[in-house]
Amino acid sequence: MIERYVYGNPIETEAILTKPQKQDGESNLITHTFVKNTYKDMYGNDKVEEKEGFKYTLSENDIVYGLGQQIRGINKRGWKYKNYNSDQPLQIESQESLYGAHNFVLVSGKKHIGFFFDYPTAITFDIGYTDMDEMYIYPDDFNLEMYVITGESDISVVKEFRALIGKSYIPPKWAFGYAQSRWGYRTSDDVREVARKHRENHIPLDAINLDLDYLDNYKDFTTNPEKFPDFKELVQEMKDMHIHLVPIIDAGVKEEEGYDIFEEGKEKGYFVKDKDGKDFRLGVWPGYCRFPDMLNEEAGAWFADKYKFLTDMGIDGFWNDMNEPAIFYSDKGIKKMYEDIDSYKDISLDATTFFELKSKVNSVSNSDDDYKAFYHNYKGSNIRHDKVHNLFGYNMTKAAALGFKRNVPNKNILLYSRSSYVGMHRYSGIWQGDNNSWWSHILQNVKMSANLNMVGFLYNGADLGGFGANVTEDLLIRWLSFGLFMPLMRNHSAFDCRGQEVYRYKNMDMMASLIRLRYRLIPYIYEKFVSSVNNDDMLVAPLGFLYPDDEIARHTEDEVVFGYDFIIAPVYEQNAPGRNVYLPEDVTMIRFRNAEIVEKTEYKKGTYFVFMPLGDVCIFVRKGHAVKLCECTEWVTD
Amino acid sequence: MIERYVYGNPIETEAILTKPQKQDGESNLITHTFVKNTYKDMYGNDKVEEKEGFKYTLSENDIVYGLGQQIRGINKRGWKYKNYNSDQPLQIESQESLYGAHNFVLVSGKKHIGFFFDYPTAITFDIGYTDMDEMYIYPDDFNLEMYVITGESDISVVKEFRALIGKSYIPPKWAFGYAQSRWGYRTSDDVREVARKHRENHIPLDAINLDLDYLDNYKDFTTNPEKFPDFKELVQEMKDMHIHLVPIIDAGVKEEEGYDIFEEGKEKGYFVKDKDGKDFRLGVWPGYCRFPDMLNEEAGAWFADKYKFLTDMGIDGFWNDMNEPAIFYSDKGIKKMYEDIDSYKDISLDATTFFELKSKVNSVSNSDDDYKAFYHNYKGSNIRHDKVHNLFGYNMTKAAALGFKRNVPNKNILLYSRSSYVGMHRYSGIWQGDNNSWWSHILQNVKMSANLNMVGFLYNGADLGGFGANVTEDLLIRWLSFGLFMPLMRNHSAFDCRGQEVYRYKNMDMMASLIRLRYRLIPYIYEKFVSSVNNDDMLVAPLGFLYPDDEIARHTEDEVVFGYDFIIAPVYEQNAPGRNVYLPEDVTMIRFRNAEIVEKTEYKKGTYFVFMPLGDVCIFVRKGHAVKLCECTEWVTD
Repeated sequence: MIERYVYGNPIETEAILTKPQKQDGESNLITHTFVKNTYKDMYGNDKVEEKEGFKYTLSENDIVYGLGQQIRGINKRGWKYKNYNSDQPLQIESQESLYGAHNFVLVSGKKHIGFFFDYPTAITFDIGYTDMDEMYIYPDDFNLEMYVITGESDISVVKEFRALIGKSYIPPKWAFGYAQSRWGYRTSDDVREVARKHRENHIPLDAINLDLDYLDNYKDFTTNPEKFPDFKELVQEMKDMHIHLVPIIDAGVKEEEGYDIFEEGKEKGYFVKDKDGKDFRLGVWPGYCRFPDMLNEEAGAWFADKYKFLTDMGIDGFWNDMNEPAIFYSDKGIKKMYEDIDSYKDISLDATTFFELKSKVNSVSNSDDDYKAFYHNYKGSNIRHDKVHNLFGYNMTKAAALGFKRNVPNKNILLYSRSSYVGMHRYSGIWQGDNNSWWSHILQNVKMSANLNMVGFLYNGADLGGFGANVTEDLLIRWLSFGLFMPLMRNHSAFDCRGQEVYRYKNMDMMASLIRLRYRLIPYIYEKFVSSVNNDDMLVAPLGFLYPDDEIARHTEDEVVFGYDFIIAPVYEQNAPGRNVYLPEDVTMIRFRNAEIVEKTEYKKGTYFVFMPLGDVCIFVRKGHAVKLCECTEWVTD
Repeated sequence: MIERYVYGNPIETEAILTKPQKQDGESNLITHTFVKNTYKDMYGNDKVEEKEGFKYTLSENDIVYGLGQQIRGINKRGWKYKNYNSDQPLQIESQESLYGAHNFVLVSGKKHIGFFFDYPTAITFDIGYTDMDEMYIYPDDFNLEMYVITGESDISVVKEFRALIGKSYIPPKWAFGYAQSRWGYRTSDDVREVARKHRENHIPLDAINLDLDYLDNYKDFTTNPEKFPDFKELVQEMKDMHIHLVPIIDAGVKEEEGYDIFEEGKEKGYFVKDKDGKDFRLGVWPGYCRFPDMLNEEAGAWFADKYKFLTDMGIDGFWNDMNEPAIFYSDKGIKKMYEDIDSYKDISLDATTFFELKSKVNSVSNSDDDYKAFYHNYKGSNIRHDKVHNLFGYNMTKAAALGFKRNVPNKNILLYSRSSYVGMHRYSGIWQGDNNSWWSHILQNVKMSANLNMVGFLYNGADLGGFGANVTEDLLIRWLSFGLFMPLMRNHSAFDCRGQEVYRYKNMDMMASLIRLRYRLIPYIYEKFVSSVNNDDMLVAPLGFLYPDDEIARHTEDEVVFGYDFIIAPVYEQNAPGRNVYLPEDVTMIRFRNAEIVEKTEYKKGTYFVFMPLGDVCIFVRKGHAVKLCECTEWVTD
């Protein structure tokens, strides 16, 4: 059952397709009250705020699922999360915000209750942080819609919620192929080399992603005339090799006289404005930029039509980036920073002043002040950005998807975004953001996938091998061993890190085999993906969804169930020859090696140490379920 | 067997007490050769250096133990570590350096070989990072001593090495009591409150640590006249309550006219000098400072005598901090930084210039340039700091220990340091540095403890609950449940984080019981500690040391053996009701709750999921071994 409560004057987000009748009064499943937000200021003083919010008392045994793209566990208990979309490259336990706002939690215990807070700006989920057994949820201001969803099981609550928010995006089938990416393919020839090395070594490949390098001075909808002079030919060559180029599109438009997108946007008034109605100037990759008003339907459609520059050349896949939106600095902010720094010059810096100075520089990016300094024309109203912050990437991406329908009506275009809000899942996928080459981020990949499925983002994946920091060969092998089950299977890394293409390593064959195993599974994965979308099912689920009465299963966070068919238990510890696996029912373990099945063993319900040397992939198939393997191809065929 | 090889003209470190005769020729157990150091510069370009070093080819089955205080696993394979002492508050997987330089590795497989590199500056251990099966070890320049130690087991190699470096420090017995610490006890009354709340609630306590707050403007060997006006009385009051105050001592001496330590040090020429023979000016907590030349015996002794200011008041415990040494900025460095920043003012910052600007600010601290800009008078020679960098904290601490022998000859003074080098273990303990309130740092605590034992730092512990970031109640409970076995059991946190004293939390009684359990174990732990020191044994050992033929045990990194008597398997995952435990032999599980034994169960060798609700502590006692419990006291008695 779904109940809808409306508080104040909520801003419409379009997360929900068909809204149920609004309920009178208050829900008796959660308490609308004042809750305490206790925190320390930067000088270590205790501060207390009374926040109007919601309170839910948790039983010892309750799990709180949800929040989609967030740090920490599948079970979100024990931390305070703030959903306010952030460009956050340091994904450590103590962060509060990542790139997406997925304001859905599911309390699972004796009851199964989902809460969705349809609210376009900052909302805090204090899930047993301040008080271990209390969940406090409070928005920045009290204009929101709350949906309370009850069901007989976790799966049924998720199904109801997913029905409410609409069917998930289904990308083209080739988007389930392997994608090689790097910020650092600096020329067309770099790209050709990546393609050639994969084909030569029979490493299956369907896509090469183009990061900022392909652009002319970071300008959207351009190509670099020196380094990618033959862009159009390159697209065709790749196509002939059955490889799709997937370029990045950033949210910021470079301020440059004569640059058509800039000139046109300025002339048409499509860029976001400051309080005086002047274009808001901010710095991102290209230096000074403007943001198209992605929340303005007309401006969004205008920007979306620009993708034609690339689709006309045959491009059929994109990733939208920097759309939280990330701001390196604003015009005002950087000037203020210089002034602030000058004020320290003549004093002897002690600890307080020295750290203040550092913080002036480090806090110039993505600052609250900047997010309050520009405005959108959203559904006919002039709205300050911070009030609709979490809708920016969503609307950029939605606009792009609608543009494809207009401009490339006969093609299914691949699209995924860094920033998101619930509702965007109908138009695109996401990737899990700028992770690192850390073992702990394999596990984060596992956990985040399960929570993303609840909120409809079925097409997702983490940067395999890790985006930042230096990879090691074993980390890459282990991550591919898990990543081969993720809908988006992309190996991506940053320019200043060790190369991550599998052909660079001694164990290339082992890694190629893992990718080949993926290709042998693609028809199965694709079919499962489509049916999960159509039935509002979980493609990747926590064990607790299937074994709600099994206390060990409910609290196992390093295994997930794929397609309700089998358990994946990846190795995520360096130098481990295998791992402990909990099996909540009798299963058949299938061991893959060199993309072949080399072992099938029956396991009774229980806890086992299972040896999984590098390169081995073990799955644990439930009775009555099966996994189909096909012949391996080197690219996805229909 | 121990072989000693000498290359070039090594600088004496005094790590080794009695040196064996030096060996002619080269060791046939490791290859002296040129190895490749491949890395990316900040622009993403590949760089290759040929470094003179050592190469050891690892078998698939080899484990590489060692490196003492370093990140990552008990088994160090799969990363590149650089031992160059660093003030590193962000202890994440991709760091290369922490606070200590413990240049010992132990290859454990069919053979057991230890390598110790006695070398006082940067040395890199590439243990399967560049090439998975190769260990490359290279110092910055080729003036070093190498010890090759062979034995029949890991334990025997460690025993030989420990015999070489001398007996570990034994602190006073009360130092095994519980210590409460916080950067943020701002007044004597704050301290009184901490003492009172522990005693009132019968939470055992032996020490309260004083962080920078007690000082007058961060000046060593002062007390704050406004906030701690009654320091001497406070010491006595605490003593009457059986509580020791343990103040911090920093390496930097404030530049301030009239400040006696500064004036005296300047007059006597005891501060480190720049290349022109002028005092080297640098900024740390107090603003501009000087470093006493800790490597100069006379200057070190002079500084050490200053501790008398505190020992005369009855203080009998210290922690030496900031002695890597950490440098916020140098006089030259900060001026250069301002100049650099000015040069950006008139340009439109694109990504490259913007990140450059940020890096100018963030790299002003602990810069290589600064470490090359001052000199020591070490054993009669003028030596540039960077050449002996890793000896600074060691010599500060050694000098303090020798000072105590002179000035407080009848008392055993507690001493531990942040920075260290092998050899310092004879004079003091260490704490594990500025960790965070992260679940992953419980596991880091476990792993680091095992490796620290190999290099003689038996007296060590991590900041329980975590130093930086905000703790949660469950994290604190779980960390105490492990920390109660560590020789140094200190709860410490930073001023801008949530309070971490156990009396602040709902489950205070549960936490108090964990501390009470510690006190019931203290006689056992202390006795075991002393015998481990005397026999050069491991107090905390990896499972592989005891079960070298058991592949699962060898690769179990989340359990350790305490005193060769029992296995500790702490819970380090949030919301987990228990954990998987591997038992390499038949054992008796003892479950403690409320500081009592509530269960004894026999377990056969194998893998189990063991339920351990919050507050329960389970240990797995080996056949023929026992753990003695005494009555609980509220402070350590003799």
